[in-house]
Amino acid sequence: MRLATLDNGSKDGRLIIVSPQATHYALAPVETLQAALEDWDAVAPQLAAITAFPESLDSASLLAPLPRAWQWLDGSVYPSHGALMDKALGHEPLKADFPLMYQGVSDTFYAPTAKVPMADEALGIDFEGEFGIIVSAVPLGTPAAEAHRYIRLIVQINDWSLRKLAGPEMKTGFGWIQAKPPCGMAPFAVTPDELGDAWRNFRPALKLEVQWNGQVFGNADGEPMAYGFDELVAHAARTRALVAGTVIGSGTVSNESYREVGSSCIAERRGIEIVDHGEARTGFMRFGDTVRMEAHLPDGRAPFGTIDQTVVQA
Amino acid sequence: MRLATLDNGSKDGRLIIVSPQATHYALAPVETLQAALEDWDAVAPQLAAITAFPESLDSASLLAPLPRAWQWLDGSVYPSHGALMDKALGHEPLKADFPLMYQGVSDTFYAPTAKVPMADEALGIDFEGEFGIIVSAVPLGTPAAEAHRYIRLIVQINDWSLRKLAGPEMKTGFGWIQAKPPCGMAPFAVTPDELGDAWRNFRPALKLEVQWNGQVFGNADGEPMAYGFDELVAHAARTRALVAGTVIGSGTVSNESYREVGSSCIAERRGIEIVDHGEARTGFMRFGDTVRMEAHLPDGRAPFGTIDQTVVQA
Repeated sequence: MRLATLDNGSKDGRLIIVSPQATHYALAPVETLQAALEDWDAVAPQLAAITAFPESLDSASLLAPLPRAWQWLDGSVYPSHGALMDKALGHEPLKADFPLMYQGVSDTFYAPTAKVPMADEALGIDFEGEFGIIVSAVPLGTPAAEAHRYIRLIVQINDWSLRKLAGPEMKTGFGWIQAKPPCGMAPFAVTPDELGDAWRNFRPALKLEVQWNGQVFGNADGEPMAYGFDELVAHAARTRALVAGTVIGSGTVSNESYREVGSSCIAERRGIEIVDHGEARTGFMRFGDTVRMEAHLPDGRAPFGTIDQTVVQA
Repeated sequence: MRLATLDNGSKDGRLIIVSPQATHYALAPVETLQAALEDWDAVAPQLAAITAFPESLDSASLLAPLPRAWQWLDGSVYPSHGALMDKALGHEPLKADFPLMYQGVSDTFYAPTAKVPMADEALGIDFEGEFGIIVSAVPLGTPAAEAHRYIRLIVQINDWSLRKLAGPEMKTGFGWIQAKPPCGMAPFAVTPDELGDAWRNFRPALKLEVQWNGQVFGNADGEPMAYGFDELVAHAARTRALVAGTVIGSGTVSNESYREVGSSCIAERRGIEIVDHGEARTGFMRFGDTVRMEAHLPDGRAPFGTIDQTVVQA
């Protein structure tokens, strides 16, 4: 089942179910994805029962599947990315026995084809291609062995980042405010069964193709997460109940073979350049630049659709 | 004008206007505080025009004035607290030329008289008495000189903290997830004019009396913030627009004279003990413990009402 949200002028949009070819849709029996998630056990069977898709789908009319959420918790669980960044930035490798995770702005997730306003090119504008999940309500203290039951939908995310602000904020230990403006989401939120065998041990084994200004920049595999999404949910829920619609991210997708498969963010490529040449050679994004992200199953299908966003001056 | 939210069984409750003596109330012309904030310029005059309060107020029926918010950004801007904690924990003093701020869970603000569920006494359960403000929508890039215009309401907050988890999370640079469960709020959100001369340079010059299990623990003055709330709003809005209902906090209230006036959190008292005796002597909270927080104007009035919360096992 693939769900999307039509722009109907409201903040939360209008929930739709998308046809297998993503050419048509049907209106959902509940108004919004948030409402569906709050009553998932009752609503999901109604959504799954829909097999007629009477309306033509115009992808330009889609918002993020969840245009705003009560909570966005982003992990950073691809070890190759962390190790490279520590090396490039001269950090002591972090020895945490738990997944890295920060809380980011969730009142806005940009539409897949949004023009994304940024204050200043000098701030080091970067994309981060990643995967995420959306849960129904998770009780406080839910262990990983049970947490996977609350993973209702899988999404594809572009975590916009401002790198010049990230280092100074990270040094405070307080996490990022200015370095992390709102994220974008690909148009379709999918139930785990849509990924078939590519949903492995609560990890998305899909290749995430990232293009910057039409050139392929990376095509990394989503599978090698050091912690699965089940573990990320349990980590987040250890001391807080998670409300329905909480979104949890993987962090920028990265593989040990980044020199071959490329990277899902500019910062990682710059890290490789620092390691190899002693200096970063690739600049950050400029106003007017585009980023396109599309995750592919082994058979070539793109279950989440496509992020195709443009940076504009705020 | 003092606003509060009745528990009517819904997630956002029912907005009311409270009488000058806080004995009676009138229903607001809009359903929720979030709705009022989204249309503040139109709604505030309607609220201010209400002078008849027909209903008796039972403070036990009140939720947090904003029972959930799209965003909670908490500062840490009392220099005496930061300097003491650096000294006690052996940290290098942080030299940031911007206010410390993290994003915390905002989908829940506990009611003023809530029983607050905590997973485990061993996690170092602590309170933090602080002040906060709530804004209407703030455009991206709003400078401090204009940011104060969006400060619509002032609130009093108890920022629940789990100290044993805080240090390891802070070392990651990613901020706190597990160490910061939801906060509580005092019952009344007030417009700045309610504080009169005690709202000085966008800082609350009120004494915040904190009692732990009925014993006075601290009575620090809210005024000596290194950054005013105008500057905190501008800091938060530098790279993101703030949606209506965003809550921004001061961090735990602290004065240079903490040995005389006491502290607004246990961690600060333990820090004093470490500096004075080489070890912390005060333990953290236990299940069944209570914390009471009430801020007083010079004439003794408590404009925000009283937080009186009890820790219970989750």
